[in-house]
Amino acid sequence: MTTFKLTIEYEGTAYAGWQRQPNRPTIQAAIEEAFRRITQTDVTVIGAGRTDAGVHALGQVASFRTDRAWPGDMWVRALNALLPPDISILSAEQVADDFHARYSARGKAYDYRILNRAERSALERHRAWHLRQPLDINAMRQAASLLTGRHDFSSFQNLPTDTENPVCDLRRLELVHAQPILTIRAEADRFLRQMVRSIVGTLVEVGQGKRSPDSLKDILAARDRRAAGVTAPAHGLYLVRVDY
Amino acid sequence: MTTFKLTIEYEGTAYAGWQRQPNRPTIQAAIEEAFRRITQTDVTVIGAGRTDAGVHALGQVASFRTDRAWPGDMWVRALNALLPPDISILSAEQVADDFHARYSARGKAYDYRILNRAERSALERHRAWHLRQPLDINAMRQAASLLTGRHDFSSFQNLPTDTENPVCDLRRLELVHAQPILTIRAEADRFLRQMVRSIVGTLVEVGQGKRSPDSLKDILAARDRRAAGVTAPAHGLYLVRVDY
Repeated sequence: MTTFKLTIEYEGTAYAGWQRQPNRPTIQAAIEEAFRRITQTDVTVIGAGRTDAGVHALGQVASFRTDRAWPGDMWVRALNALLPPDISILSAEQVADDFHARYSARGKAYDYRILNRAERSALERHRAWHLRQPLDINAMRQAASLLTGRHDFSSFQNLPTDTENPVCDLRRLELVHAQPILTIRAEADRFLRQMVRSIVGTLVEVGQGKRSPDSLKDILAARDRRAAGVTAPAHGLYLVRVDY
Repeated sequence: MTTFKLTIEYEGTAYAGWQRQPNRPTIQAAIEEAFRRITQTDVTVIGAGRTDAGVHALGQVASFRTDRAWPGDMWVRALNALLPPDISILSAEQVADDFHARYSARGKAYDYRILNRAERSALERHRAWHLRQPLDINAMRQAASLLTGRHDFSSFQNLPTDTENPVCDLRRLELVHAQPILTIRAEADRFLRQMVRSIVGTLVEVGQGKRSPDSLKDILAARDRRAAGVTAPAHGLYLVRVDY
């Protein structure tokens, strides 16, 4: 058996997220189905991150094991020929047998895009969160600076499980403003469930003057999801990169 | 009667172009239908450029005359409430009665986006022309420099009419490269039919080594569409701005 690592781009709009579910279109199911048509065998494709419905990826990573020791290029061509146009395989490479897309990851990078202008946008409608009122970006930057570093991020975790370690090292949380698009870039060793979207929703409330930048300290200390702000919608989020 | 000027963004993917046609969805028809539902009266909305099927706009301009002397904001809100999400009105303003979106225009700007990498892109599939082989961008820049200025552009006009003046002042033709996206920016006082797409197709053939940069002189001199290269596909083209 040979282990392969895939890098994948997708537009999440038409999918119920990454993870296979009965009777719903998902990215994982689409890739597994393409694999089945190519090889006439079943496979499980393990994703580095289980992106939610509507979330996009520029560089999702997935791994699978197969008895076909093909060159990487051949997997790319064969899978892309069968996958729908909103999913594209960017690369495939053979990796060591102990490689696991999720457990081997040392870090991830996400972008969250906000369209900040009065009128809605035709071209950005599935690709950015539309907020009509101008945001106080300096206040948002101050708030963001209080979140970087190693913290217990329980207040930014939706649907927590008892067993999961809530401490993450948020190495970068940066706001890049190119009017009318505000991009929030987040990099961490690991992320909790819907952590980026909870952080973005909370930063937006700071930008709207509903919370002070300083309040982020109390929110972190509360270790309670109810202390933080709304969960930003899925369609502004992009899984940009997974590091190993 | 009052004349209004609209600025419009749209994703052209789902439309048979700007201009009204029987039994086919077009941008003009969608806006006129929204107007009809708002006012219970008919209107003709005149576009500055009749974009083809699949072409996008960041700043198309259109004008119409009505007996409703509403504030511009009210038109924006009313139209956006009824228009489909892939068409958005960015602004509406009252203008002088002799304003005509097409005939008053003094210039236009287009962008053409090329995705230049081996693998196809999920997110760019309707938004850029995908070319797998690396392009010689320096050669393309040399060729482009021979096209700027005032010339007879008959060789870059599809479906010419006898009556149309083929001389245009191409004020700018610039290549902006941010790998893997190559954007070709074109500005002129006026453009002939499918002129940007014919220019892009010809520049790409230079980038592929099929033509020399110098050959652009002969192509211009030929005043014959058959002298130039292919017409680039519609889905990479964006009407960016109309100047008055």
